[in-house]
Amino acid sequence: MLMGKVVGTVVSTRKDEHLSGLRFLVVRELDHDMKETGRMVVAADSVGAGVDEVVLYAQGSAARQTYLSHERPVDAIIMAIVDEFEVGGDKLYVKD
Amino acid sequence: MLMGKVVGTVVSTRKDEHLSGLRFLVVRELDHDMKETGRMVVAADSVGAGVDEVVLYAQGSAARQTYLSHERPVDAIIMAIVDEFEVGGDKLYVKD
Amino acid sequence: MLMGKVVGTVVSTRKDEHLSGLRFLVVRELDHDMKETGRMVVAADSVGAGVDEVVLYAQGSAARQTYLSHERPVDAIIMAIVDEFEVGGDKLYVKD
Amino acid sequence: MLMGKVVGTVVSTRKDEHLSGLRFLVVRELDHDMKETGRMVVAADSVGAGVDEVVLYAQGSAARQTYLSHERPVDAIIMAIVDEFEVGGDKLYVKD
Amino acid sequence: MLMGKVVGTVVSTRKDEHLSGLRFLVVRELDHDMKETGRMVVAADSVGAGVDEVVLYAQGSAARQTYLSHERPVDAIIMAIVDEFEVGGDKLYVKD
Repeated sequence: MLMGKVVGTVVSTRKDEHLSGLRFLVVRELDHDMKETGRMVVAADSVGAGVDEVVLYAQGSAARQTYLSHERPVDAIIMAIVDEFEVGGDKLYVKD
Repeated sequence: MLMGKVVGTVVSTRKDEHLSGLRFLVVRELDHDMKETGRMVVAADSVGAGVDEVVLYAQGSAARQTYLSHERPVDAIIMAIVDEFEVGGDKLYVKD
Repeated sequence: MLMGKVVGTVVSTRKDEHLSGLRFLVVRELDHDMKETGRMVVAADSVGAGVDEVVLYAQGSAARQTYLSHERPVDAIIMAIVDEFEVGGDKLYVKD
Repeated sequence: MLMGKVVGTVVSTRKDEHLSGLRFLVVRELDHDMKETGRMVVAADSVGAGVDEVVLYAQGSAARQTYLSHERPVDAIIMAIVDEFEVGGDKLYVKD
Repeated sequence: MLMGKVVGTVVSTRKDEHLSGLRFLVVRELDHDMKETGRMVVAADSVGAGVDEVVLYAQGSAARQTYLSHERPVDAIIMAIVDEFEVGGDKLYVKD
């Protein structure tokens, strides 16, 4: 999985019929220092994530292993909201 | 998923038999600022996208999860046309 | 899919038994301007492509969705020969 | 697989229901000289790895081929702890 | 597939139970000029490859399409030893 910060949303009305009901969030990838890497992904959301939250997202076929995304044309899914991110003994992030 | 802009088309007559009937569009990847990243993909189209439209595309096995692309040798598919792309509270893109 | 130019061949006699009969071609990736990106892939061939031809290739599990490559340990396949590549209204490539 | 060093942990309470019981570790990728490449992944753990250990991790659908991770939305798994890493006849790493 | 040179080995005793009996080799990726790209992968071996040999390796789910690797948590496999690599009419590599 990669860690990212939800920064926005994508709205689409004309889309494949398998996608109805899914929310698409804009996620910017974070590195081990919680800095943005410059890469972005648009991910479906299985956990009710909101803008500014730090999340984990899975890519590839893993993205279809939730009830919401099963057999849908989705290659990235937010599957966890991060409470704590600890590296080298330091808590670099603790959710409010 | 990644976001991209449709910039062109690919025509092929000699191709794997599983590909007949699919349209192939040239898509340039966009980043969180709607700027081109320099990467390009040729994607099958499941939503009737046209040149200059901003779209979402899925890669990998997800690309075979539409009726059109099921069990075909396709690794990228346009599965949504973007109406609005909002980051940090700003609508960076609104479809005409 | 990505677009590439076939530039060579790989010969192997000691290989996994599932690979017998497959041809392996060396493909250099092309970008939206038909320039080489510097990346290379060795792809199986399902369409009888030859050196110097411009092709589309699929990667990942999609590479096993042809009769030739089904259930074989292959992660890239040439599935179409490009006749025309048009970007921004200009035909950047037309096959002879 | 890629080789990496476990440098930390991620804690999440709000996550997809298929993820309960999995530990998520922060892994920094290492290159052929045991130097960090700058890339990071958050991987599920199938072998009881701890911080500072050098591990192998598999990505993509391979990450679901363990008892722990089967049919879960996980795209990276630590599947081995490295005892020795030898390149060019030199043992660049030997576990204590 | 990508082409690489086997440069070393990884030994692991604490690993997922599905991995017993597999050998893990360190492979450095080669480009179209047989130069190292700087990227490395640890691959399972299905063909009895040895250090210094030039090989093809498949990544992703393709890595599980050999008898040795079926249903194992493996994302890269050496599936062929290269005899000849020819680009632009020149044999850039011929196995001794």
